[in-house]
Amino acid sequence: MASTKLRSRRRADYRFSLEYRTRWSDNDMYDHMNNSVYYYLFDSIVNTYLVQRCGLDPPSSNQIGLVVHSHCDYIAPISFPSVVNVALRVNKIGKSSVTYEIGVFERGDDAVKAVGSFVHVFVERESRKPARRGMGDTLREGLERIKADETARL
Amino acid sequence: MASTKLRSRRRADYRFSLEYRTRWSDNDMYDHMNNSVYYYLFDSIVNTYLVQRCGLDPPSSNQIGLVVHSHCDYIAPISFPSVVNVALRVNKIGKSSVTYEIGVFERGDDAVKAVGSFVHVFVERESRKPARRGMGDTLREGLERIKADETARL
Amino acid sequence: MASTKLRSRRRADYRFSLEYRTRWSDNDMYDHMNNSVYYYLFDSIVNTYLVQRCGLDPPSSNQIGLVVHSHCDYIAPISFPSVVNVALRVNKIGKSSVTYEIGVFERGDDAVKAVGSFVHVFVERESRKPARRGMGDTLREGLERIKADETARL
Amino acid sequence: MASTKLRSRRRADYRFSLEYRTRWSDNDMYDHMNNSVYYYLFDSIVNTYLVQRCGLDPPSSNQIGLVVHSHCDYIAPISFPSVVNVALRVNKIGKSSVTYEIGVFERGDDAVKAVGSFVHVFVERESRKPARRGMGDTLREGLERIKADETARL
Repeated sequence: MASTKLRSRRRADYRFSLEYRTRWSDNDMYDHMNNSVYYYLFDSIVNTYLVQRCGLDPPSSNQIGLVVHSHCDYIAPISFPSVVNVALRVNKIGKSSVTYEIGVFERGDDAVKAVGSFVHVFVERESRKPARRGMGDTLREGLERIKADETARL
Repeated sequence: MASTKLRSRRRADYRFSLEYRTRWSDNDMYDHMNNSVYYYLFDSIVNTYLVQRCGLDPPSSNQIGLVVHSHCDYIAPISFPSVVNVALRVNKIGKSSVTYEIGVFERGDDAVKAVGSFVHVFVERESRKPARRGMGDTLREGLERIKADETARL
Repeated sequence: MASTKLRSRRRADYRFSLEYRTRWSDNDMYDHMNNSVYYYLFDSIVNTYLVQRCGLDPPSSNQIGLVVHSHCDYIAPISFPSVVNVALRVNKIGKSSVTYEIGVFERGDDAVKAVGSFVHVFVERESRKPARRGMGDTLREGLERIKADETARL
Repeated sequence: MASTKLRSRRRADYRFSLEYRTRWSDNDMYDHMNNSVYYYLFDSIVNTYLVQRCGLDPPSSNQIGLVVHSHCDYIAPISFPSVVNVALRVNKIGKSSVTYEIGVFERGDDAVKAVGSFVHVFVERESRKPARRGMGDTLREGLERIKADETARL
């Protein structure tokens, strides 16, 4: 299903990455990482980036990111035990929303295993509505730092 | 993000449904069911349908379903503790693949909370390739029974 | 490993129960519910009871329960798809702590599948220390209502 | 709850260790790693050791390990995002069973955060009963290599 463009993604197409060791329970009955687990990894790298580079403090920040859409194309399987490289970039930044793209690789292998995306809308913690002025400056500046070039977009 | 068509989905738009009680760990730090958990529910209702109505036996069947694409639009939050209705239909059947649509509702509430979709390709267990003749007849007949009318498709 | 006493537990030995539908990902590669998943169910029934009967509001309550010990004896397997009855009682109440016992059954089967236990210490949200006067009255009264008789204890 | 002996566990008390990066969903609503997640880590390090050092191939090995008992004492919290060191040793080897002990540490901190244990009974895949001659030699030799000294046992 994945387009040729997605299948040709390489680590260099992303701006921030982390290694995650797979867990026994990531494998489902078919001896490969379950499709849902990829979304846990997407959430993990995005929130790590938001915490470490964009000033997010999940239990207290005034603005928090809610997921309104997500999708993933699965290209090749990953099995426990292994170490995966999860690689992140930002494809689009709006007034209150951001579209991330995440590439999943396996340590020691250049071929991409899955490419996913999700959209965060930053809302005020209490009202769960976007702020009138949109996302805060620290957040926006952090996200801009890993934004893909116009021409490289999905 | 979700289209008006998706936001207007009702239980009657689906052909098979099951109730799932939410778990403490479904909630993430923002006091709502984490976006990844929806995919676990999609997998659960689809595989329950395949086991109970289409003859699938996950540890032994010759043909198994691998997910090649998935997506979800999140419309309104669900929180622990609650009971969710997960509702399934088939939108498209190909030679070896099937596209499911899943609606997520909360017990006692007509408004849809999320609508997702995923594509299974049925492959032979050993080769992990589609069979030359496509999916088996029992499987196809089971899937046809919950196929949405042409005009109702996503 | 489980003692004869534990193996003979029946639904009537518990005071509060809920049904949970198993999920595809609950099964691990050995085609049975993974041992870790039982703890998710323990957490789920305990916190549902605390929310519905003891006045707990996880995002705002002044006192919250932290787990300091847990254990489980696994007696017979459960497989996806199925519906499990998770049954709860309180075995011991201290000044700030409570010891729960949880029995796991499968719908339509009297034999217990697993028996587990965990200890919550109720602490103040900010300090993460027990309150000087111990757990609040609403909490204590709720827990007393499902306390097992002295002679029936583990 | 944890004994003084457990609270004084150090990395040097274990024979095999791996780092696991925490995931967003590991945190529950109380902004710390949920108690159930520790068991996923126990399962992960044990099965990684069995695969890499004891010849286990989960989808095909004749003998597989089933968990009959598990427990954990929680000493101090861990929060997302962080990297945990999960450290393993074997405390006891029987004819068909083995008792593991697992210590959980956080990168850059000597104090142990949790100590857990579980018991695997190795059974034949089909019958789910222990083999007449007990666990296989490759398995036993692998487990012996990380066995704690008599005097250091729990």
